[in-house]
Amino acid sequence: MVLYLCSFNKRTLRYFLKIRYNGKAYHGWQMQPNAITVQEVFEKCLSTILRQDIPIVGAGRTDAGVHAAQMYLHFDSEKEITDLDQLVYKLNSFLPKDIAVLDAYRVTDEAHARFDALTREYRYEISLKKDPFLQDFAWEIKHLQLNVDLMNQAAEILLAHTDYESFSRTHTDVKTFECEVTKAVWKQESDRLWFEVKANRFLRNMVRAMVGTLVEVGRGRCSLTEFKTILNSKDRSKAGASAPAHGLYLWEVDYPENIFL
Amino acid sequence: MVLYLCSFNKRTLRYFLKIRYNGKAYHGWQMQPNAITVQEVFEKCLSTILRQDIPIVGAGRTDAGVHAAQMYLHFDSEKEITDLDQLVYKLNSFLPKDIAVLDAYRVTDEAHARFDALTREYRYEISLKKDPFLQDFAWEIKHLQLNVDLMNQAAEILLAHTDYESFSRTHTDVKTFECEVTKAVWKQESDRLWFEVKANRFLRNMVRAMVGTLVEVGRGRCSLTEFKTILNSKDRSKAGASAPAHGLYLWEVDYPENIFL
Repeated sequence: MVLYLCSFNKRTLRYFLKIRYNGKAYHGWQMQPNAITVQEVFEKCLSTILRQDIPIVGAGRTDAGVHAAQMYLHFDSEKEITDLDQLVYKLNSFLPKDIAVLDAYRVTDEAHARFDALTREYRYEISLKKDPFLQDFAWEIKHLQLNVDLMNQAAEILLAHTDYESFSRTHTDVKTFECEVTKAVWKQESDRLWFEVKANRFLRNMVRAMVGTLVEVGRGRCSLTEFKTILNSKDRSKAGASAPAHGLYLWEVDYPENIFL
Repeated sequence: MVLYLCSFNKRTLRYFLKIRYNGKAYHGWQMQPNAITVQEVFEKCLSTILRQDIPIVGAGRTDAGVHAAQMYLHFDSEKEITDLDQLVYKLNSFLPKDIAVLDAYRVTDEAHARFDALTREYRYEISLKKDPFLQDFAWEIKHLQLNVDLMNQAAEILLAHTDYESFSRTHTDVKTFECEVTKAVWKQESDRLWFEVKANRFLRNMVRAMVGTLVEVGRGRCSLTEFKTILNSKDRSKAGASAPAHGLYLWEVDYPENIFL
């Protein structure tokens, strides 16, 4: 009983970190055997600096090669961290060049990086010409006329749709394919074309399957009617191929304000 | 005599190519033994496509790791190239991802990519925070207050100066250190700080030595008076360390319009 109370009273404090990473060198976010992942590298650095084993929980899982302009994670510490700026400074010195901490926050004890996220926004970058500076940062689509108006008409169809089984991995254990997409728009500036998509949740591979299929619409190989049929089919094999990982960025994650102390 | 005439009559046609490259993987522009250079890779591709040995002459030489947003080169072909767009297309398919051809031009027979360049402009990029997307594209300077106003005052001193021996390699065979600098300005947008510098010619390592010294001015470790003294000393050892290669871009090269046919 005494032991139980002791353990119960050993209160931990919860923190959020906002980070950015270049996904090129990593086998995605989530820890796995025989492959280097962002989570693994991050946990090692954080545990070394705080001198305790610190498991971290991310806002989501990015696949191999996918970047994050903003990813959030939470962790618990037995000791209070009084100087969060110094933690950010130390982590940035210690982490490799392709992972950076942008900010640190003290949050409520129950705040959860994954479950409390209200929305997530992804961005997909396409380069319409060969550009040596974008080789790791955009999908290069040259010599094809893409009809961006049509791609935006198809994107609008997404806003009214809720079941995304057609854009999900075929082998998955998710309980539901329902996602509320609240933003889906293509924007263009000369040779740069990008897709902004926001939802309460995303299925694995969903944005890349979406982008691959929307590009088929832009190329004229899939009509708007066919696009609707694909969505309603709930069959991944009907949709286009996945767009490559290196054009995709987890862009922004939103949380309720009251979790930040 | 007959042979001489034959050879004389075998007219070649001259072309310019405007190219862009990511310098990370290369040991600079200029061909050298035991190291991969942009010139070597380019000559091989061009020679393969045109089925003749094609030596190329670049507008300048970039050092190992330095990028080019725009580099020009010239080459001669015995056969007339009627479809320049197709040449650009073929080269871009054949060249590695980190080298791209932006444009091709037929020029006068005497046009010379190096000697006809009126001005060259370089750009040097600094990131004032750690950014995983800029790790290969900007010099990261964190946690230092840089006084950009002072850096611009020092840059203005350059505009009135002509002898750049202080910013030249110590072992060099150039005949003169005279350069006419016509633009030298620092610009800032939030955490991005960059230097634009334009001159009729640049000495080897000149921009990186300039930037390294101007950053010392910005840090308050070199006054404007000391900066002038360094310039007048004609002594490289007095100036600051060279800024790293991966922040430097050959940005633009200007030619007289009448060389383009």
